[in-house]
Amino acid sequence: MENSNTTDLSRFDNRHFQPGGSSLSRLLWFYVNALVFRSYLFPFYGMKRFLLRAFGAKVGVGLIIKPGVNIKYPWKLAIGNHVWIGEQVWIDNLAQVTIGSHVCISQGAFLLTGNHDYSKSTFDLITKPIVISNGAWIGAQGLVCPGVTCGEHAVLTAKSNATKDLEAFFVYAGNPADKVKARQIQ
Amino acid sequence: MENSNTTDLSRFDNRHFQPGGSSLSRLLWFYVNALVFRSYLFPFYGMKRFLLRAFGAKVGVGLIIKPGVNIKYPWKLAIGNHVWIGEQVWIDNLAQVTIGSHVCISQGAFLLTGNHDYSKSTFDLITKPIVISNGAWIGAQGLVCPGVTCGEHAVLTAKSNATKDLEAFFVYAGNPADKVKARQIQ
Amino acid sequence: MENSNTTDLSRFDNRHFQPGGSSLSRLLWFYVNALVFRSYLFPFYGMKRFLLRAFGAKVGVGLIIKPGVNIKYPWKLAIGNHVWIGEQVWIDNLAQVTIGSHVCISQGAFLLTGNHDYSKSTFDLITKPIVISNGAWIGAQGLVCPGVTCGEHAVLTAKSNATKDLEAFFVYAGNPADKVKARQIQ
Repeated sequence: MENSNTTDLSRFDNRHFQPGGSSLSRLLWFYVNALVFRSYLFPFYGMKRFLLRAFGAKVGVGLIIKPGVNIKYPWKLAIGNHVWIGEQVWIDNLAQVTIGSHVCISQGAFLLTGNHDYSKSTFDLITKPIVISNGAWIGAQGLVCPGVTCGEHAVLTAKSNATKDLEAFFVYAGNPADKVKARQIQ
Repeated sequence: MENSNTTDLSRFDNRHFQPGGSSLSRLLWFYVNALVFRSYLFPFYGMKRFLLRAFGAKVGVGLIIKPGVNIKYPWKLAIGNHVWIGEQVWIDNLAQVTIGSHVCISQGAFLLTGNHDYSKSTFDLITKPIVISNGAWIGAQGLVCPGVTCGEHAVLTAKSNATKDLEAFFVYAGNPADKVKARQIQ
Repeated sequence: MENSNTTDLSRFDNRHFQPGGSSLSRLLWFYVNALVFRSYLFPFYGMKRFLLRAFGAKVGVGLIIKPGVNIKYPWKLAIGNHVWIGEQVWIDNLAQVTIGSHVCISQGAFLLTGNHDYSKSTFDLITKPIVISNGAWIGAQGLVCPGVTCGEHAVLTAKSNATKDLEAFFVYAGNPADKVKARQIQ
């Protein structure tokens, strides 16, 4: 006799979610992420580029990836050229995350692709892709919410929360982030 | 000759604080938390449910608890049925934290029970309990401040900051979090 | 033929940045920070005070430093007397960080000294020092941005974002943080 107007997490059904990869690759990646990427003991970019590609990520040239990074599924990650991924960045990519070229994702930033339908008693998982376009900058501790596209050379300032798309060549700040000024590059 | 109008942390006196547990259980839990709960190496729900109960937490059926979780004192924690505790959730329960049933605490959320009386030179510790009622959802990177009760099926959106009670069946967003709309569940 | 109006991270040039310390001390500190300070296995204040001083930090008496702390360069850190540095505090001091006496930096707070000139195609690094004056309190998960001075006994509440200087004896909240009331100490 469930009350249909309340959440019932025992009825949550995630069978439609497609994690991608094989069971084995998901298991292996879980520990590679835990032991290599999240660790501070292996500050070696080359090894991490190799591992990301080996697990199906598309990675361009010149990727800098600092210690303490947490990546959910490398096979749902595409990164352009000359990208920086800062210390303790969290790419929680249940859905595809596409990062252009010359993008900086600063330390502590979080790319969040998962949501729940809180209007349903079954609290269904909703995943939406994220796009960080060429030249964009996600500031330290910034949050990019599911489904958000950050336009080319958009800037999200430190600790700000991008709940909707960021227009190209504009700077956004706050929680939720609002447009604060245009970005002009010399 | 302290100036009585400035903070003097050398005079901080925490003797009235009751951490609970025995000295031995606090020491053991410190390392169990560090080596098992905060780690990514043991993504096993059953083991964590067992350990939480062994250290005095009240834990219902169906608890899902992801890697990287940080819990201060399990003997000050009560969790209902079918609760999800996401990756890197931090339950900093110097005071009692009571979580109802069918609650989701998403990745990176923080339940904060400690404060300081900054009107006193001695900067006294103030702890206040937190209640997360049935069906509530604390979004990713959400903060619940000391003394806050989140009403049934209340929602705190990602990166928001609950500085005061959340009314049942309402959605809150922002820092500080404000009511943004009603939650209706089909 | 780069378009001069877009970011080109391949042209980023960090040769002017002065990390301080010798190459050896930077290498050693990287692992001391990773294995001792960021860890939860060594909750021993004395050992950490010793290590900070050995690596060039100025540290007064009575420093309390909790587990999980992340410090970039100890030789760019000066700490007064009776200071508390909470669990998982991140002092990302590419530039000098000066902390007065009787300062509390609560758990999860972040002192950020690095920025980028996003008006330049070369995305030049800009570092600015931070000062946390006597008696100030940086609340849990608070962010102090590059160049900010927190005046004496200023308070930044939990999860707030100090984007500009905090006036002495005032309380600031929000993202960005605004002055909310005066602080009076009995």
